[in-house]
Amino acid sequence: MNKWYKESGYLDDIVLSTRIRLARNIKNIPFPSKLKSEDAKKVIEKTQNAVENFNYKLNKIDLASLSGIERQSLLEEHQISSAMLSGSENQAFFLSEDNKVGIMVNEEDHLRIQCIYAGYETDKAFDLINKVDDYLSENLEYAFDENYGYLTSCLTNLGTGIRVSYMVHIPALCMSGLSDKIFSVIGKLGIAVRGIYGEGSKSQGHVFQISNQITLGVDESEIIKKLKDAIDNIILQERELRNKLFKENRIVIEDKIMRSYAVMKYAKIISSKELLDALSFVRLGISENIIEGIDSKLINTLLIETRPAHIMCIEKEELDAHMRDIKRAQIVNSILEGKEE
Amino acid sequence: MNKWYKESGYLDDIVLSTRIRLARNIKNIPFPSKLKSEDAKKVIEKTQNAVENFNYKLNKIDLASLSGIERQSLLEEHQISSAMLSGSENQAFFLSEDNKVGIMVNEEDHLRIQCIYAGYETDKAFDLINKVDDYLSENLEYAFDENYGYLTSCLTNLGTGIRVSYMVHIPALCMSGLSDKIFSVIGKLGIAVRGIYGEGSKSQGHVFQISNQITLGVDESEIIKKLKDAIDNIILQERELRNKLFKENRIVIEDKIMRSYAVMKYAKIISSKELLDALSFVRLGISENIIEGIDSKLINTLLIETRPAHIMCIEKEELDAHMRDIKRAQIVNSILEGKEE
Repeated sequence: MNKWYKESGYLDDIVLSTRIRLARNIKNIPFPSKLKSEDAKKVIEKTQNAVENFNYKLNKIDLASLSGIERQSLLEEHQISSAMLSGSENQAFFLSEDNKVGIMVNEEDHLRIQCIYAGYETDKAFDLINKVDDYLSENLEYAFDENYGYLTSCLTNLGTGIRVSYMVHIPALCMSGLSDKIFSVIGKLGIAVRGIYGEGSKSQGHVFQISNQITLGVDESEIIKKLKDAIDNIILQERELRNKLFKENRIVIEDKIMRSYAVMKYAKIISSKELLDALSFVRLGISENIIEGIDSKLINTLLIETRPAHIMCIEKEELDAHMRDIKRAQIVNSILEGKEE
Repeated sequence: MNKWYKESGYLDDIVLSTRIRLARNIKNIPFPSKLKSEDAKKVIEKTQNAVENFNYKLNKIDLASLSGIERQSLLEEHQISSAMLSGSENQAFFLSEDNKVGIMVNEEDHLRIQCIYAGYETDKAFDLINKVDDYLSENLEYAFDENYGYLTSCLTNLGTGIRVSYMVHIPALCMSGLSDKIFSVIGKLGIAVRGIYGEGSKSQGHVFQISNQITLGVDESEIIKKLKDAIDNIILQERELRNKLFKENRIVIEDKIMRSYAVMKYAKIISSKELLDALSFVRLGISENIIEGIDSKLINTLLIETRPAHIMCIEKEELDAHMRDIKRAQIVNSILEGKEE
């Protein structure tokens, strides 16, 4: 199956992914929080009809027929949100065959359209999501107000309904302690910084999600420009700090990189947290040509496919944390087996 | 050059080495602590003459002509004691070509004859040291008293003048916490337990030196028998505990072993302490067939040849601890390079 994270992308040693989502609602139907089952099904039906003849194929994934672990896997792949985990028949999920576009139906809004690319691929993601949004708007009547723009369930999404989110990997900024300073500055510009696993999560593996907070009163292109400026600045500073780090302290950072690689290759029990940290250093090692023969796409794949639900999907059973740590080690060991370093 | 530690020995996954030393003094010459330069040279000369025609060749090593680092290397190989480090011309050192027998002249006693074997090789060591002692006693007049036995500089060596010392590697006993209990029991039997690096040192890498404390009033064979009984018991308990450990907690111990192997193969900075611990787990892994393709002789070699003076001997210069840690990692990496696991 196609997976967005198994592809390469521009500057993907720093920007792991570019994600854009649009919040849309259908006119004259209550928002999902107030939605009766009957109306919910109407929204699903309307969406299904709307995409039916689209030349960019979007397949309906029947979440209710999936196991809890399988739904959790979609969450781990950043395709659905935790609000979709119950597998309610009042919700639906559409996914494109190239794995890049998903539509959650009756999550917080009637439609949450998302486009995701590996790497720093704002234009590609924006073009593709616009193509989907344009097609849908021709076949669905969106709730839209001349003054406010797109009407949404939550005020934070009102207006453009857009959220652009980059997943960035910034080990040098983190190790130097500069990341906190940068986050505080961009926070004041209305840009949100969260850990790798979303809202409440702390930073792990030097990975952060950086996204716009404001959707109202500004043009989509302005929102994107401001965010891109911030990301460009972060990339620049991360590169400079990496150079400095390798110039001043090469052996110490090489040691960290090779120890991380060693753990991934040989440890028999690897926790999720330890792997996240190891992946960070190995990714850095690949980026700086210290580790050769491993593609960074493999690191992206491991980042997602060693998460709990993915492991349990492979094993086809519920596993406790200790058993998952053992299986995780097996997966990682076997993927690095025979790879050069 | 031959090195005792590069050979295999009986049960050498638990008993790393068997060392026997005899304290001997020459009649009518003051003990070394009271020795004038003139008399010291006489002792050296007498010893040199005594071994000259011996068919088991003992070569005089001119310690004064060696660098401090080279003398320190001999200490790290357990060939000389720290009392010989100054390279005084009043002292001398003789070493057999097979690297198994050394004679320190004018250390605490006129002669300290030592025989060392890799593994649990009491009989071989005892036979060889007796051969040397017998030959010397024919060509030197030992200070001997009918009542007390061999007269020695320190009372703890009076009588037989023998000290038998085993270096044991007991990871399972240590991890289970049983080692302290055993050491307390054998301590009451007049058996001394010290860390890997001698008197004052703490245990590192699950390795201990176990030796007799009493030399007086008991026959050599009794001393050896009591010690061997203790070692036999330790071996038995260690084996049982290893079986238990692998039966009850295989994956946890495999994880420790493979992580240790991984550090040795890939880390770029390795401290002496970290390597000692890693060598312990890797030795255990070899013994339990978890790591294949590596000979335990290699582990013995690394145990000695990664110590500070050995590293500085290779580099031919004084190095600070950080530089030694880097060089140590290079040595260990390159030795494991291309080895199977």
